[in-house]
Amino acid sequence: MPDVAAPPDAYPVTARNRVKRLHERGRYDRAAVHAILDAAMVCHIAYVIDGQPYCTPTAFWREGDHLYWHGSSASRMLRAQKDGLPVCLTVTHLDSLILARSGFNHSVDYRSAMCFGTARVVEDAAAKARALDAMIDRFYPGRAAELRPSTEQELKATTVIAMEIEEASGKVRAKGIGDDEADYALPIHATRFPVTQVIGAGEPCPRMPAGVPVPPGLAGFTPGRRLDEIMLESHRATFGEG
Amino acid sequence: MPDVAAPPDAYPVTARNRVKRLHERGRYDRAAVHAILDAAMVCHIAYVIDGQPYCTPTAFWREGDHLYWHGSSASRMLRAQKDGLPVCLTVTHLDSLILARSGFNHSVDYRSAMCFGTARVVEDAAAKARALDAMIDRFYPGRAAELRPSTEQELKATTVIAMEIEEASGKVRAKGIGDDEADYALPIHATRFPVTQVIGAGEPCPRMPAGVPVPPGLAGFTPGRRLDEIMLESHRATFGEG
Repeated sequence: MPDVAAPPDAYPVTARNRVKRLHERGRYDRAAVHAILDAAMVCHIAYVIDGQPYCTPTAFWREGDHLYWHGSSASRMLRAQKDGLPVCLTVTHLDSLILARSGFNHSVDYRSAMCFGTARVVEDAAAKARALDAMIDRFYPGRAAELRPSTEQELKATTVIAMEIEEASGKVRAKGIGDDEADYALPIHATRFPVTQVIGAGEPCPRMPAGVPVPPGLAGFTPGRRLDEIMLESHRATFGEG
Repeated sequence: MPDVAAPPDAYPVTARNRVKRLHERGRYDRAAVHAILDAAMVCHIAYVIDGQPYCTPTAFWREGDHLYWHGSSASRMLRAQKDGLPVCLTVTHLDSLILARSGFNHSVDYRSAMCFGTARVVEDAAAKARALDAMIDRFYPGRAAELRPSTEQELKATTVIAMEIEEASGKVRAKGIGDDEADYALPIHATRFPVTQVIGAGEPCPRMPAGVPVPPGLAGFTPGRRLDEIMLESHRATFGEG
């Protein structure tokens, strides 16, 4: 149960998702949390099997208040999740390195989001096929319809996991250098290095038949562009602003 | 207990760290795992409090077979870890987006490492101060000695956590497009987009006194360089190849 009254567009704030450390960096409104999630392709998921925590990286996507990811039907994590497994799904964007005048004030600018919920296997065959198309389209708008259709065997070998976001929080540091006032006068080099994740020029498969055009959904995938911007754009092109 | 005989330079392989899904991508030798870890600044740590998994991003570093990270003494994760908490620390580098001819063969190239162990607070004051200097130097070689020294209060407000790597595995996909043989003839655009995390030009703090030089330890921090290469270089400059 929420222990703090939350506005209608915000996730409930409880002991589980309240940002405790440097709480002024906390964000609970859906727009802020979703912007962090939708700018990412890869998340890390924490889950527990027999008391042992695991942290697994995977591609994921959001539709409304649900998060989805997939994997081989054989994978340990997904097998364990068939009955519904509590998970914490976290996304992190590293935005800059902050070299301050003291060790204590060294930092990084970042955007992160933690989402709590119960992961469940999508059992319905039609829902699963739809979700896998949505996954492709979410990253590469319009691409699912351009592909060789999935076979029965491929669908069988793939598990799709869905999790309703029960609680979530974002955490953002975007302040650059923040030194103690007395330290600014010291003759110490202090600087900020921006960090971005970018794509390079596409390397078309040399085995493509001649004349296959680049699909319009990849128009935004230009060399040097930030992946977070592309991912956010792709998400909105596929699912709208919601 | 290891259930597979491992060479002397490899981590033991058990049910916990054996790569099950696409096991041909698994790596257990220290050199391979360390190269993935040392190329990163940020990891994600899974841990459990009262049955609830959490996944927290944080800066970390490796010295020999130990991993270290730090935080405010007030943070939930670190408080819970005072008695030694089982954790899984994971690092992921995204290397490329693979757009294949079927949804099933869409993929990403990546390097990831999962490390298992028990996290413990570094209680000894001297060891803690040394670790915090090592953290700065590991990212920015030689920098700790250039900084305003830490105050008693700053050291008190900071908790350092150490974890011996009990088991670890790396997982690497670096094969680019891998379509079904029959699919190569299809008129479908297939391509690979390289992904890199790069730094931009340093933005020196405008409040620096005139004439403060860029320290030699930052010589490798040139605009457009890959952060993973810089981090690996910094690690080796500080700790050697070990």
